[in-house]
Amino acid sequence: MATVEELKLRVRELENELIKCKQQCATMEDAQAMNRPKIDKMSAEVVDSNPYSRLMALKRMGIVEDYEKIRTFSVAVVGVGGVGSVTAEMLTRCGIGKLLLFDYDKVELANMNRLFFQPHQAGLSKVEAAEHTLRNINPDVAFETHNYNITTMENFTHFMDRISHGGLEEGKPVDLVLSCVDNFEARMAINTACNELGQIWMESGVSENAVSGHIQLIIPGETACFACAPPLVVAANIDEKTLKREGVCAASLPTTMGVVAGILVQNVLKYLLKFGTVSYYLGYNAMQDFFPSMAMKPNPQCNDRHCRRQQEEYKKKEAERPKVEVVAEEEEVIVHEDNEWGIELVSEVTDAELQAASGIVPDLPEGITVAYTIPAEGAASGDTVEETEQSLEDLIAQMRKL
Amino acid sequence: MATVEELKLRVRELENELIKCKQQCATMEDAQAMNRPKIDKMSAEVVDSNPYSRLMALKRMGIVEDYEKIRTFSVAVVGVGGVGSVTAEMLTRCGIGKLLLFDYDKVELANMNRLFFQPHQAGLSKVEAAEHTLRNINPDVAFETHNYNITTMENFTHFMDRISHGGLEEGKPVDLVLSCVDNFEARMAINTACNELGQIWMESGVSENAVSGHIQLIIPGETACFACAPPLVVAANIDEKTLKREGVCAASLPTTMGVVAGILVQNVLKYLLKFGTVSYYLGYNAMQDFFPSMAMKPNPQCNDRHCRRQQEEYKKKEAERPKVEVVAEEEEVIVHEDNEWGIELVSEVTDAELQAASGIVPDLPEGITVAYTIPAEGAASGDTVEETEQSLEDLIAQMRKL
Repeated sequence: MATVEELKLRVRELENELIKCKQQCATMEDAQAMNRPKIDKMSAEVVDSNPYSRLMALKRMGIVEDYEKIRTFSVAVVGVGGVGSVTAEMLTRCGIGKLLLFDYDKVELANMNRLFFQPHQAGLSKVEAAEHTLRNINPDVAFETHNYNITTMENFTHFMDRISHGGLEEGKPVDLVLSCVDNFEARMAINTACNELGQIWMESGVSENAVSGHIQLIIPGETACFACAPPLVVAANIDEKTLKREGVCAASLPTTMGVVAGILVQNVLKYLLKFGTVSYYLGYNAMQDFFPSMAMKPNPQCNDRHCRRQQEEYKKKEAERPKVEVVAEEEEVIVHEDNEWGIELVSEVTDAELQAASGIVPDLPEGITVAYTIPAEGAASGDTVEETEQSLEDLIAQMRKL
Repeated sequence: MATVEELKLRVRELENELIKCKQQCATMEDAQAMNRPKIDKMSAEVVDSNPYSRLMALKRMGIVEDYEKIRTFSVAVVGVGGVGSVTAEMLTRCGIGKLLLFDYDKVELANMNRLFFQPHQAGLSKVEAAEHTLRNINPDVAFETHNYNITTMENFTHFMDRISHGGLEEGKPVDLVLSCVDNFEARMAINTACNELGQIWMESGVSENAVSGHIQLIIPGETACFACAPPLVVAANIDEKTLKREGVCAASLPTTMGVVAGILVQNVLKYLLKFGTVSYYLGYNAMQDFFPSMAMKPNPQCNDRHCRRQQEEYKKKEAERPKVEVVAEEEEVIVHEDNEWGIELVSEVTDAELQAASGIVPDLPEGITVAYTIPAEGAASGDTVEETEQSLEDLIAQMRKL
């Protein structure tokens, strides 16, 4: 039987142990929690404790006129994988005003060959894990996350709503949409939404053999949209047959994805903060360190009626503008105007098929090729997308059949 | 006065609270600790739990013949800042055998505009913080860190020793040295060490206005070393006077640094795993999205006697090789052979000075320029480095005076 003295001693021991445990817990919590307060106003002061000093120095260096403006912008990142997560991290570290993240995937150990996610996040939703890390990195950024697939009808409607109302000031549209997805359906969904809303967006992609990628700026009505022409990719001089095989695990590299995220966010910064030359299309061939660039006009016969409407509106605006002598800085590829595009998702393209289709492939600079072939009229074995005012769902259903 | 019953109750309460606290602590510890076991053998199995499946897929895609070989290589990263930290992370995620990290800096909030480090690491040494994060990401990699400045005499000796003995198998040299430093002294120290040891290395750099960068492969005796010719940089069409001002905080961007780290590690992978074309020099001009490449032969009058010795040895080896028809893939810039280089670290270069020095600037492709001017003979106002067998310390002392 314990005496009062023994029990008192035990209470004291336990109290001490508990204090120690709580202290240890608090230390760990501190280490995990964000530990810098929010910053009201970006400062250019050169002190170690200022997370914005090296960015504000862009003003002194004569690169950016008004860096603080970064805080007024809202950017949507669709797809938070190998490219999207790094894209979101770069924008967060640059101090963007607001980020909207869309993804429906979970973090897996199989993602650890790319930057950003860490093994302890395996099993978490990508948007949830990303938001947690990004908030710790920069608590000044506003985040909005959506853990869903944008290509289902209900989600697509919600996605459209957030693009048009999820700006820094609720109700205003976002400033830019970035496509960092890894499949055709999702790209077409973003394209459809942005054409309807007249929303400027940038597309990015990495090949399934991991050694090439690209970024593309799409201004509805002014440049070719994703439905105007088949998506362009950088030829990596690799046997086409190794690409896009059903059921085969795609390769990926943190290097290629890091470079693509880097040139994408660089283009975003140049576009938003108005410095340098914004690229319409920039490819990256890692095998030869080759970086082709180009620009492409929209197709007047584009299948997307909203694209055609945006083209009409752009033409009107252009006609009303006072004429100025413009020196073309980039070679423009003109899509053949009298062609009906039938976009086909082809997984195994033979050289003969490529040859047969070449008549309607736009004249591309060396090193750039199309991601999918366009069958010559009547030569398509499957259904082609007709010149109609189809809904996204019809389109996707047709794509699935191919 | 507490009764035995009251005290017993208190003991039970405290015991329960302590158990709860310990559980909470353990959960946090789990989250922080690496939570995947080491993997003995890289597998190509396509399952979510395999962190190497997307890398091993490079074999199936016909890109890399023997990806597993990555585990046999040891790479030294000198400088763990904006470029070096991302470089180390990419190599870690790719499953490199061993990483040696050298840096003497501490993490600061002012570094948060670049990838990798997080605010809670502020105050820690960069190598310590990096090792902790990288071990969590991939426990299969061996790490060796050195928290010192390689340019002091004692540390330089130790650095040389680790380069020549810090391979995966202790006693063997490392396979590659990567320079991710931000100053001339440290680059010259790496150059001196690698020339003496015949160690192949890659150099990287980002301009102080944050909008250009480059990578360079240096094979002692075969390509120009850092002392053969002034370092080359990509011209960003920015007023030179804004660059390299003493006491002015340099600008930096996560985008430019991410791209430079990406093309650097891509070049490392191509070199180590033998795929694609390894670049001798690749520049990145972010303002115009321009990526010049070139190769440069060594200078027979190089100030570094070890470089001259390596050149002799390379010539002998070349002469002994059976002759094969070689098609030159890259334009080679030949450094004027009858010139004595006097490398000068110039912080403010006028156009007139550039003009005056142009006679001895190698014939460079469009868009590439030298980082520092080389004064015409006799025109130098300060001391120039003489054609002697100077020690690193002398050289650095002279550089400091300029």
